[in-house]
Amino acid sequence: MKAETIAVGSEMLTPDHLDTNSLFVTQRLNEAGFEVHLKTVVGDSESDIAWVLQSALDRSDLVIISGGLGPTEDDLTRNAVARVLNRPLQTDPALLDALRRRFASRGYPMPQINERQAQKIAGAEILENPAGTAPGMWIEESGRHVVLLPGPPRELRPMFESAVLPRVRQMGMRRRLARRIFHITGMTESEVDSKVAAMYRSYPNIQTTILASPGHIAIRLYRWLDEQQEPADLDELASKIQEVLGDAVFSTNGETLEEVVGRLLRQSHKTLAVAESCTSGMLGMRITRVPGSSDYFLGGVLCYSNDVKERFCGVPAPLLGTHGAVSAEVAVALAEGICKGLRSSIGLSVTGIAGPGGGTPEKPVGLVHVGICDAKQAMSVRRILPGDRETIRERAVYFALSNLRRFLLSDCGRQGIR
Amino acid sequence: MKAETIAVGSEMLTPDHLDTNSLFVTQRLNEAGFEVHLKTVVGDSESDIAWVLQSALDRSDLVIISGGLGPTEDDLTRNAVARVLNRPLQTDPALLDALRRRFASRGYPMPQINERQAQKIAGAEILENPAGTAPGMWIEESGRHVVLLPGPPRELRPMFESAVLPRVRQMGMRRRLARRIFHITGMTESEVDSKVAAMYRSYPNIQTTILASPGHIAIRLYRWLDEQQEPADLDELASKIQEVLGDAVFSTNGETLEEVVGRLLRQSHKTLAVAESCTSGMLGMRITRVPGSSDYFLGGVLCYSNDVKERFCGVPAPLLGTHGAVSAEVAVALAEGICKGLRSSIGLSVTGIAGPGGGTPEKPVGLVHVGICDAKQAMSVRRILPGDRETIRERAVYFALSNLRRFLLSDCGRQGIR
Repeated sequence: MKAETIAVGSEMLTPDHLDTNSLFVTQRLNEAGFEVHLKTVVGDSESDIAWVLQSALDRSDLVIISGGLGPTEDDLTRNAVARVLNRPLQTDPALLDALRRRFASRGYPMPQINERQAQKIAGAEILENPAGTAPGMWIEESGRHVVLLPGPPRELRPMFESAVLPRVRQMGMRRRLARRIFHITGMTESEVDSKVAAMYRSYPNIQTTILASPGHIAIRLYRWLDEQQEPADLDELASKIQEVLGDAVFSTNGETLEEVVGRLLRQSHKTLAVAESCTSGMLGMRITRVPGSSDYFLGGVLCYSNDVKERFCGVPAPLLGTHGAVSAEVAVALAEGICKGLRSSIGLSVTGIAGPGGGTPEKPVGLVHVGICDAKQAMSVRRILPGDRETIRERAVYFALSNLRRFLLSDCGRQGIR
Repeated sequence: MKAETIAVGSEMLTPDHLDTNSLFVTQRLNEAGFEVHLKTVVGDSESDIAWVLQSALDRSDLVIISGGLGPTEDDLTRNAVARVLNRPLQTDPALLDALRRRFASRGYPMPQINERQAQKIAGAEILENPAGTAPGMWIEESGRHVVLLPGPPRELRPMFESAVLPRVRQMGMRRRLARRIFHITGMTESEVDSKVAAMYRSYPNIQTTILASPGHIAIRLYRWLDEQQEPADLDELASKIQEVLGDAVFSTNGETLEEVVGRLLRQSHKTLAVAESCTSGMLGMRITRVPGSSDYFLGGVLCYSNDVKERFCGVPAPLLGTHGAVSAEVAVALAEGICKGLRSSIGLSVTGIAGPGGGTPEKPVGLVHVGICDAKQAMSVRRILPGDRETIRERAVYFALSNLRRFLLSDCGRQGIR
């Protein structure tokens, strides 16, 4: 069945705010068998809301309108919906009473302005709002359904879960959405696309999205299934994709790269220390995002200046002089120095030129060296990463974690751990 | 004049993707005097695109459509627009030639599929795409304007700047949007709202939005002005807001907190070193986001384990034993230790319990101590921060930077620098 969302609120038409409710609503509707085929954001204008709702009723089975249910004159969703459905909008004594009691229970009288929130569109079912003063409404009109929800996420979400979802499930349950996800690192978007595009194009029933962010690409597959249908073609496509992408895929279950690395460290009883130059904390921050990371992460040094590289990470001054701070030699020395200094099983380092200044023809902005070592071996990898300062840093963190993952996998492989 | 945006792409109708192009487009259109009064997201469906465009032409002077200009069968924007405008869609020899040359310059022949990107809607002006293969189009139809832009932001943005903005500026220049922004830290959203709500409600011509993120609140004021009009009421409201919020406002020019702190450090010729426990790199990462931060930031230590606190930050073991790692005493010792160890003018430390585990009734999850010192003095501040692990860490970084800012301001004040 077809659904669409309408988000009401002039703030979402500024350059600074997005309609994020629709992501939550879409996810829940998809699970209940509804496809969201259109989303609109409209300001606090009765005519614009009415215009959009009128179109929506012509094309969708279910229309979810959020926002514009507050007590002020700017809150016009009730009026617009009543107008489009040609139904009266009247103060509901029970609603008014409930509102007054809500204010009384908090120890002050209801401002007169809030009386508007007791207005009900004739024939609507009221959806209770435990988290705020704006009641929701569910209205059926010639086989179509219009649902009014409050805009603030902390009011919308509980109302959706408790009052909307049960009704929606009964309407749409015959279909469900199956999803698969691949998280990939170490490849560019066009490399990924050139490998998988021909594959997913031959599955017209599966929707495929590829989202690239710095250092990281996510492929998502979506497949609508009827009641008893098995996702056989979805599994087929997924295994083809897995095969061509190989170990560039670091997770298919939603695990982040830092979670994968953390799991491998934990499984092999290893500890980790980091030395960060250009990323200056971004790597440590990512690793410690994972709850319980203190079990394997000991800490590190932000060796932004050469003095800190020498004195805190044991990099010999001549090495810095000969090869420069951004070099394979210094990357290895940083990894070894931090490993020794913090007495960890593994040392990981990043040194590079994040820009915008500091680049030379020989060592351009974006050049990054990563060093990795344990008690037995040390290695370094080099790459020139594209983008602005922050993008280069983000890519450098993925590059470091991705190489650490490969290091741990080959190491775990030798030990028989996967 | 009225504008609206239509974003085309089924990925933006999944629970995982938003239309972010519209923020950029809105900002630029606002600057050029256009009000964006409606935004739609629509899938790769010719009929849905046509449906929305038809409505848009009835209500808006300018319609910006992004996405759906790729080479595949899913890319249907050209077809839908041609259908609605009732104009032929024909292969343009010049476009085809340019596309072939683009591929040739990269050393491979153009795939046949890309020929679709040489299709032009009759009467359209072509907008060049230096960053990709999809050309944009500008079409005038009975006094309305329809603009087709590629979906990827790195293609859309340069095309918008170079080809759309100059045309749009000529159309809309009579009105402009004046904006004011306040960046605030150290207050909750409800504290801010209770201080300013009555103020901004008495300025009905000014749109006010308050956006809270962990550790940080932004108040934005928007005011449409006619050609010669001065933003007197906007300045009046802004100065009232500044007065009640005082030095909780850390910037009104868009400067980030790390930029403010960096500027103060630079002005007073101070250097900084950090010792991070629970934030474990997030603070260093934020400080070094600013280009040129190596002028004042020396580096730091991620002292996640107590061993690192002792050996790298010089915290005496008995202090850790007596007070625990999360204490005012250890926060000060960390700041002093890192300041001495890295030979910086100022030391800044964060130690806390980010959770989800590790809390006790005495030291609950969210407890954070920040230590600050220079050669003459040392201090610590304490707060219990709400939220999940990542939110607590983000708030802790704001709390640390905010206190460093106050420290620097009072210090700069003594030296006569503002």
